[in-house]
Amino acid sequence: MSASHPGQHPGQHPGQQLATFAATLRLSDVPAPVVRRTEDLMLDWAGSTLAGKGSRPVESIAKFWQSQSPATGPSEVLIHRSGTSPLAAAAINAAASHVAEQDDVHNGSVFHPAAVVFPPALAVAQALGRSGADLLAASIAGYEVGIRVGEFLGRSHYRIFHTTGTAGSLAAAAAVGHLLRLTPEQMGHALGSAGTQAAGLWEFLRTAADSKQLHTAHAAHTGLAAAYLAADGFTGAQRILDGAQGMAAGMSSDSDPARLTDGLGTRWATAETSFKYHASCRHTHPAADALLAVMTAHGLKPDDIARVETLVHQGAIDVLGPVVDPQTVHQSKFSMGTVLALAAIHGYAGLGEFDAHYRDPATVAFCNRVSMTLDAEVDTAYPARWIGKVVVSTTDGRRLEGRVDEPKGDPGNTLSRSELEGKAIRLAAYRGGADEAEMRALIATMWAMADVPVVGRLLPAAV
Amino acid sequence: MSASHPGQHPGQHPGQQLATFAATLRLSDVPAPVVRRTEDLMLDWAGSTLAGKGSRPVESIAKFWQSQSPATGPSEVLIHRSGTSPLAAAAINAAASHVAEQDDVHNGSVFHPAAVVFPPALAVAQALGRSGADLLAASIAGYEVGIRVGEFLGRSHYRIFHTTGTAGSLAAAAAVGHLLRLTPEQMGHALGSAGTQAAGLWEFLRTAADSKQLHTAHAAHTGLAAAYLAADGFTGAQRILDGAQGMAAGMSSDSDPARLTDGLGTRWATAETSFKYHASCRHTHPAADALLAVMTAHGLKPDDIARVETLVHQGAIDVLGPVVDPQTVHQSKFSMGTVLALAAIHGYAGLGEFDAHYRDPATVAFCNRVSMTLDAEVDTAYPARWIGKVVVSTTDGRRLEGRVDEPKGDPGNTLSRSELEGKAIRLAAYRGGADEAEMRALIATMWAMADVPVVGRLLPAAV
Repeated sequence: MSASHPGQHPGQHPGQQLATFAATLRLSDVPAPVVRRTEDLMLDWAGSTLAGKGSRPVESIAKFWQSQSPATGPSEVLIHRSGTSPLAAAAINAAASHVAEQDDVHNGSVFHPAAVVFPPALAVAQALGRSGADLLAASIAGYEVGIRVGEFLGRSHYRIFHTTGTAGSLAAAAAVGHLLRLTPEQMGHALGSAGTQAAGLWEFLRTAADSKQLHTAHAAHTGLAAAYLAADGFTGAQRILDGAQGMAAGMSSDSDPARLTDGLGTRWATAETSFKYHASCRHTHPAADALLAVMTAHGLKPDDIARVETLVHQGAIDVLGPVVDPQTVHQSKFSMGTVLALAAIHGYAGLGEFDAHYRDPATVAFCNRVSMTLDAEVDTAYPARWIGKVVVSTTDGRRLEGRVDEPKGDPGNTLSRSELEGKAIRLAAYRGGADEAEMRALIATMWAMADVPVVGRLLPAAV
Repeated sequence: MSASHPGQHPGQHPGQQLATFAATLRLSDVPAPVVRRTEDLMLDWAGSTLAGKGSRPVESIAKFWQSQSPATGPSEVLIHRSGTSPLAAAAINAAASHVAEQDDVHNGSVFHPAAVVFPPALAVAQALGRSGADLLAASIAGYEVGIRVGEFLGRSHYRIFHTTGTAGSLAAAAAVGHLLRLTPEQMGHALGSAGTQAAGLWEFLRTAADSKQLHTAHAAHTGLAAAYLAADGFTGAQRILDGAQGMAAGMSSDSDPARLTDGLGTRWATAETSFKYHASCRHTHPAADALLAVMTAHGLKPDDIARVETLVHQGAIDVLGPVVDPQTVHQSKFSMGTVLALAAIHGYAGLGEFDAHYRDPATVAFCNRVSMTLDAEVDTAYPARWIGKVVVSTTDGRRLEGRVDEPKGDPGNTLSRSELEGKAIRLAAYRGGADEAEMRALIATMWAMADVPVVGRLLPAAV
């Protein structure tokens, strides 16, 4: 069906309504600004993925998949300029997407869609020779599904589970299922097979282990497999989301099935997705921007600051709290103190700032002056709004409050196409993933994606 | 290290003790009867896997992995007599292992070890050219780890999660990690990476979906990947099992860390594993055997029986309760009524009986005369002991009680090597997986496995 409101299937249970929406979505149903935003998100993703080149855990995952997979194939491994099977390319690109912590985030679901949607979507579009419009529609299906599943699973889920890993399997299945042109019934089976493979626990943060890259890879390849299997008649649980032995029953205590169908076809969650500005866990961004606002307003230098109390939501404490003395650059991206230190000292917590300065004595000293306190207003607004509030105590005894209502990169404070281009070029250059000329060509492709007849390589192949 | 009690590492937390045990286990530490039992289990697994040939969900998973993987390779796909990468072979063989419901089960953990341990272990042993002794030791490491993880996760986990899928990832990682000769520290990382990918929900049973085969495949390939990654330096959560955001925190409410190290090096859980006799969910076996005992003792025919009340543990009700009107042969293996009907009418609920008779009017009529009632004695003994109790009401008004304390196939009522050979040959013949001569050769290899210098193909390659 292709009704003007593709989300309305009131006779179906919520999970099947979501599946039907994902299967029947047409790009012509999607408002033009949402399509343009999807192009923005795809460019931002490509830059983030290229920034993963050379990262030890990413290259480890790539090495493993390449050892098990065809040495050539239709699907592009961005960081290596090689081709392999859709399955392996999806896994490797997904592993690379998230490590620089510069990929996008949807606030309400605390879910990073790009890392789990574009890798399988691009790999399969390339393998099947689909059009750019197909790739965009499939990606939007993936975003809309993954975000709603994340919202459905709720805050109790996110306390233990890495929603990008778990909801990510279903997002990947929706995107790939759309490219495979699954029927609504088949899409329901694909989501069932994805959901029963959904995994990802936060425990790894405590010892700065490499699991985050494994989670995005896992979501991408299990979701891709679920969709291919569904196309072949393989069945999955009908009520994998809200059934008595389904995902919410096992992995959530505050799930809300109404979120699965919230505004399907009229509310475009894709366009609610935020771009990252600082190269750190998104939970640190509101406070970092609030601190920068105070420093700018009062002309403070780092040494003027005796203490920073950040007023945060519980989720920030859950994720960032275990990181008390960051030992690796990746772990430091989950340290509120380190992020605020880099922002205060360098004006920006970017990839280069982390690599060069995360263990500087000045950074560590500032880090130790930062605390987190649960704040009722911030916690209540979260996750719909990520308010930043800080209380700065100066060395001369002043108490200064800072606040931002939308951190930079949020939909109401978004990045322009020019800013996005600059960010992508910097990310690609960071580890030599692609040079500026290559990125200019890739950017031109992205801005014309809706008219690309057959999705080809985004970058020239290795010679 | 190779101490005589390889499980004793009191300075380590329970999960690391288990990892150290798995990494340092030597076949010479294992009592000979346990090694012989492992050979029994491997033969039983090979037969079960060959019985999966031609099964629609199994072939669907095989088709997918073959489409994404090298067309040749060192690791054997038993049902197709082909070779491919270890990853794909592990996934396909694991998918095939469990569908006939004839593979082994460990009662205390409600975990099917063979389906998730032997597929990755064989695939990697073949790829690395390891010895039969290495394969046996690795398999024992996988059994001991998987069973203890299942016991640790407890009954609350099994109510929602398919323990074979979840604990199976860690079992697979332990077996493959042993073959890769991981250090204890690396093995800890392998278990961390496996545990953070662990998945599998029972929701699929409600609509007789195909997920069970996906779960074993998923456990095998994610565990294999976790071990290969650990060998390359990839790190995982140290306390993936009992950490504040680990598996038990997310997926259990009655976990017991003491179970992770219970008798390591002295208690051989591998040898506690039961062989299946009836070709159905193990939860049906105690009652089926108890019914057969009553019928034999009193010379009853099926038509003499008006009603059968089975007295069961809660786990049986959780798993079998949703299956009220089985629509597929696979679903009927989870129907207490169908299993008891086939046992009553044919004396045995085997693969052939299910295929030919699961929807016979006589089967359905008997099925509808069977009920399940929670029984305090049975439930308390479970899962350490699987007691079978039935109350049979006859058409002439008698009330007869039946009981078995160990269903056929349990360690105290096990199958002889001759019975195991017969079962494996029947399973291999069931869908033309292998003929008797081929199986006789495979059996000879199994009984000599401890002395095989390099593990080769179990069956002749396709011509």
